[in-house]
Amino acid sequence: MDARVKPAVFDLTGWSAGRLARVEEALSRWVVADAPAGLGDAMRYAVLDGGKRLRPLLVLAACEAVGGNETAALRAACATELIHAYSLVHDDMPCMDNDVLRRGKPTVHVQFGEAAALLAGDALQALAFELLVPDDGTVPTATQAALCRLLAQAAGHSGMAGGQAIDLASVGQDLSEDQLRAMHRLKTGALLQGSVMMGAACGEPAPAAAVALRDYGAALGLAFQVVDDILDVTADSATLGKTAGKDAAQDKPTYVSLLGLQRSQAYAQTLFSQATVALDASGLADTRALRALADMVVNRNN
Amino acid sequence: MDARVKPAVFDLTGWSAGRLARVEEALSRWVVADAPAGLGDAMRYAVLDGGKRLRPLLVLAACEAVGGNETAALRAACATELIHAYSLVHDDMPCMDNDVLRRGKPTVHVQFGEAAALLAGDALQALAFELLVPDDGTVPTATQAALCRLLAQAAGHSGMAGGQAIDLASVGQDLSEDQLRAMHRLKTGALLQGSVMMGAACGEPAPAAAVALRDYGAALGLAFQVVDDILDVTADSATLGKTAGKDAAQDKPTYVSLLGLQRSQAYAQTLFSQATVALDASGLADTRALRALADMVVNRNN
Repeated sequence: MDARVKPAVFDLTGWSAGRLARVEEALSRWVVADAPAGLGDAMRYAVLDGGKRLRPLLVLAACEAVGGNETAALRAACATELIHAYSLVHDDMPCMDNDVLRRGKPTVHVQFGEAAALLAGDALQALAFELLVPDDGTVPTATQAALCRLLAQAAGHSGMAGGQAIDLASVGQDLSEDQLRAMHRLKTGALLQGSVMMGAACGEPAPAAAVALRDYGAALGLAFQVVDDILDVTADSATLGKTAGKDAAQDKPTYVSLLGLQRSQAYAQTLFSQATVALDASGLADTRALRALADMVVNRNN
Repeated sequence: MDARVKPAVFDLTGWSAGRLARVEEALSRWVVADAPAGLGDAMRYAVLDGGKRLRPLLVLAACEAVGGNETAALRAACATELIHAYSLVHDDMPCMDNDVLRRGKPTVHVQFGEAAALLAGDALQALAFELLVPDDGTVPTATQAALCRLLAQAAGHSGMAGGQAIDLASVGQDLSEDQLRAMHRLKTGALLQGSVMMGAACGEPAPAAAVALRDYGAALGLAFQVVDDILDVTADSATLGKTAGKDAAQDKPTYVSLLGLQRSQAYAQTLFSQATVALDASGLADTRALRALADMVVNRNN
């Protein structure tokens, strides 16, 4: 029962501080400024901008929970953030969401032009995979291959890119709750869940723990999007750091448009419970950081 | 000396036939039609269109020359083609070259819309890496990791994407021959050379052979672009299957604009010689297919 008391006193901010510093330092080192013809500048602008780094923190927390290889986890953490960053760059482009504001700054294509934004996104995706396969003996090749597999699945047609395709096709459509859930599980959920599974793949968790972390990641990933939909109607642009109300303006189906605000909020809490139940069933000794991250996802205000 | 006679009688068409059939079959199987919301259709349209498959053939020829793992090589062959295909999709978009014709067909964004083209390209890049890391025991994880490393380097900021950034910045600029060479070594050369090196990485070549294949790939990669520049002014759109004369129309620096047609043709022959000298120095028993592919690159008419 002790384990149930711990989360209340777990200091997520303190836990995150050193890990965020390591991630920022690594991103700044690995996202090279000396790429040709300004490409590096656009890549760095897209990545080094004070995002929440939720995906890297999930990788590191999951790796710590299973006692995994920390060098592998730092690389995987940065790789997930590069995939996330590239998806935002491409998503903001005029042919997609045509957004000019991201995290309070002009979007990459506004700052550098559309062609540079396209290339920077492409190069960030390649760099994400490059980070996972160092040739210096620090990460076993079996781990490298597993990390590449998980990232490719989370980012590609059966993950994030597939979800974005559904999103694109769903504008102005009526979706059922099942269809909306399927879309979000891919579009946002796959990379969040993939981050947790990549952290786990840095170690050798028992099968039950691996399954529990997968289920935790699925619940957290969906909760993230439900809360995103809620914030799109309840928060202002300044708090969000991006354009609020744009889902409604673009006639996109959301949890709020489908379930209403109150039922969406209840659903987010249900998903949080599913995430914590999975952690309780994991058999892992210390899952406090993972629990606190799920709490942050559900109760954030931006 | 026997080796110098062999190329004249080597039947590249015959050698290629079965290998191209395997590549086409594998691409058709791996580039999934059932990706969500039409994404798979756009991905297949971009890939399954009768390209020359030069990169896959280079992978397979290099793998055979070193006696490598054929399963790994088929996966690597398809992965290089997916990277090539995604780069064409993005390159043709209105914010880049704004081209409407590719291999005699409407480009992907003309056929499916810009947003779908952007996503299809992104998903093809992820799929390229996914192909390299099968979880079925057929390819040693050390080979998987090496292939991912080579592909990421060839595709990313220090390879193809970097070269495209230079290309973008060079429109209307006067480049020196060194600058032009540096641009093309990245933009086109990196993935061609990478294809050769990935084929070699499917086996365990002696260090001298690995270096020779790397040098062969570098010469062939640059020759490809020199010939591309020549064909842009000497061939018509119907033969090329894409818009001829567009480099000059877009005021892009090319070998022909810099050296003139005759010196460009001589330079292509010099690079062919460099490629064959490297093969002769490789110590490999049978490099006839690689030699014939270099010959095809230099003497093609489309």
